[in-house]
Amino acid sequence: MTDWAHLYADRSKRMGASEIRELLKLLDQPDMISFAGGIPDPALFPADAFKQAFEDLFSDGGHQTALQYSVSEGYKPLRDWIAGQMAAIGVPCSAENIIITSGAQQAVDYLGKLFLSAGDTALVGWPTYLGALQAFNAYEPAYQRLDPFANMSAQAYRETAAAAGGAVKFAYTSADFANPTGETLTLDARNGILDLAGDLDIAVIEDAAYQSLRFDGEALPPLMALDIARCGDIEATRTIYCGSFSKTLSPGLRLGWVCAATPVIQKLVLIKQASDLNSSTLNQMVMAKVAMSCFEEQVTRIRKVYSERRDHMLAALERHMPAGVTWGRPEGGMFLWLQLPEAMDAGALMEQSVTSAKVAFVPGHAFFADGSGQNCMRLNFTSCGPDRIEEGIARLGRLIAERMPWAA
Amino acid sequence: MTDWAHLYADRSKRMGASEIRELLKLLDQPDMISFAGGIPDPALFPADAFKQAFEDLFSDGGHQTALQYSVSEGYKPLRDWIAGQMAAIGVPCSAENIIITSGAQQAVDYLGKLFLSAGDTALVGWPTYLGALQAFNAYEPAYQRLDPFANMSAQAYRETAAAAGGAVKFAYTSADFANPTGETLTLDARNGILDLAGDLDIAVIEDAAYQSLRFDGEALPPLMALDIARCGDIEATRTIYCGSFSKTLSPGLRLGWVCAATPVIQKLVLIKQASDLNSSTLNQMVMAKVAMSCFEEQVTRIRKVYSERRDHMLAALERHMPAGVTWGRPEGGMFLWLQLPEAMDAGALMEQSVTSAKVAFVPGHAFFADGSGQNCMRLNFTSCGPDRIEEGIARLGRLIAERMPWAA
Repeated sequence: MTDWAHLYADRSKRMGASEIRELLKLLDQPDMISFAGGIPDPALFPADAFKQAFEDLFSDGGHQTALQYSVSEGYKPLRDWIAGQMAAIGVPCSAENIIITSGAQQAVDYLGKLFLSAGDTALVGWPTYLGALQAFNAYEPAYQRLDPFANMSAQAYRETAAAAGGAVKFAYTSADFANPTGETLTLDARNGILDLAGDLDIAVIEDAAYQSLRFDGEALPPLMALDIARCGDIEATRTIYCGSFSKTLSPGLRLGWVCAATPVIQKLVLIKQASDLNSSTLNQMVMAKVAMSCFEEQVTRIRKVYSERRDHMLAALERHMPAGVTWGRPEGGMFLWLQLPEAMDAGALMEQSVTSAKVAFVPGHAFFADGSGQNCMRLNFTSCGPDRIEEGIARLGRLIAERMPWAA
Repeated sequence: MTDWAHLYADRSKRMGASEIRELLKLLDQPDMISFAGGIPDPALFPADAFKQAFEDLFSDGGHQTALQYSVSEGYKPLRDWIAGQMAAIGVPCSAENIIITSGAQQAVDYLGKLFLSAGDTALVGWPTYLGALQAFNAYEPAYQRLDPFANMSAQAYRETAAAAGGAVKFAYTSADFANPTGETLTLDARNGILDLAGDLDIAVIEDAAYQSLRFDGEALPPLMALDIARCGDIEATRTIYCGSFSKTLSPGLRLGWVCAATPVIQKLVLIKQASDLNSSTLNQMVMAKVAMSCFEEQVTRIRKVYSERRDHMLAALERHMPAGVTWGRPEGGMFLWLQLPEAMDAGALMEQSVTSAKVAFVPGHAFFADGSGQNCMRLNFTSCGPDRIEEGIARLGRLIAERMPWAA
């Protein structure tokens, strides 16, 4: 047998299995109610629009282009459409500011690759998106907590980063309905992050995967729009915006994008050339057709359904959770964030929950770069209908109540 | 303006623009005859089979699955089909030994990520696939020349690698109709690479992107089959096989695979989770349908056409190249490799060729880790029909003859 371990790169030590992805395999059990995955409801995909787009592509002769290699920056009509969408949220730009990626996940991976040498520091939320930690981990960074209200000086961040063997390179954040908490950053928090990034002279990575999924409340400008308002032009910004079609039209085509100043886009094009040449030409052409034909209509439709499911889950939590369990009310997105009494361990609970109660969720500690958050859990409210939400939360409430420290 | 350069990771210094990818942009000029890209002829794509597969997917209800996220290892029926193909070339294995990647390019990138710490050494051919060098460069390796007949001791490889700051991790090779030379390794060379890898206790990465495209001569066993014949079982092998659908069915869907011992596949699954979650579910389901319906027929068809084009180009070279220019006769694949007189610089020739003669090729030095090969060039013979091959080679022959050192 080959002794593989001694051949692996140092970074492989930080490549762990994702609890979320492992949990996806449990979805197949018919009696399992899963609030674990961060996945859309497949019944809501705009299937007719996709079917039509594929038919059109093959009947209008576009398929020869679609089945071929294409440029690494992505399909121009799709980039043009995205540039239009960006302008509508306060980010005037052109296709030169857009690269197509295989989902926002790939964007986050590429940005780790572009910025992080081993020992460099990334500022991330406590908690933050698990997939970002996994992507960044391959580049062996240190993490510091991103907290715009911590009143920590730029110098203090720098000194801690130097002690870890590198420099602070970027702040990674999700301003709207963040995974995992569902929370939205206030305008003060957004400006605070930009101020801090300016003091540190670092990049800001804005992961906007859920931004289109606002159910209620008033939309706040993306960090990138605030940055442009400050400096006048996208070419002068430090913000790098990552968008995705996965939560709106379909994750199965694996398409997202980065919007940034052109020097950054040009670097990302080189990274894409070297890593997978281009995202599927066919999928980009189809996504352009579907986005142009029904994006707004589709977003309106899923917002309504997901908003109702959020309300169902909030109501079910009120009914079934014992005292001592708390949660927020997200204004959009896909997730609710539960805090159990501090003494409880959601990781241990998970095992019992999956095997006996047949309810799946993601334990909170997975989202903390320092492994804290033991008493937290993430619940997805988009992939189950109302009946299963009710039943699943009831089961989960019973399980938690049984295991309350004072119930024993 | 943000000073991006000081924020980039050290590895970014080794991210250069690909001449091949930049050249792809020139294909759009109508009077340009391009032998530059390594791309299939789009007229030969099995368009009807793809059309039918998409229609079937939407009519049989598979589209809800197709539009959703899926497991990182890939779509099981496609992995099963690939395992069957691998068995047919002497590599008995199961779906557990297969991960689906976004083309063989992504496989090569992931293997660089898995094995190479900065300063580690990769053994590569002089020349080798440019895209492999680009992928590996992001992980900051040193290179040594892979030459199974160099009679260099394992100890000498090790000492040179240690002096470069790391250890030898793998040998990367393409055994059949390699990009860029079109050459096929003899059985002795294949066994020599396995012997060397055994002495060094390193992995062997076999890039088999062109393996199905044999026109004539007798097929030799892939290195992986030889490895299994030696050690009895895929689980005991050190070879990691990278396959692709890009040269047979379509590059536009971006699908390839890795076949290896399960511990390696499991590591690659973690890398895929963190980098793009999964290759397009839709494309994987469609590719499985198309592969099952027409793979053999399609390969037979394109072999015939490409074989004729190789012969056309060989005949045109005989007619139009001045004395002092030499080339081989590949038994398959997509490329011919020309050697100009030593004093000539194919890079300088290229600029004149594209601007005045309107013929594109790739200068040879791009394929050498040490930047040598100045007098070489790669010609692709698959993407142009006979008339354009004749015209393009005639133009190129005239240009070279004019610039022969003794012609001035």
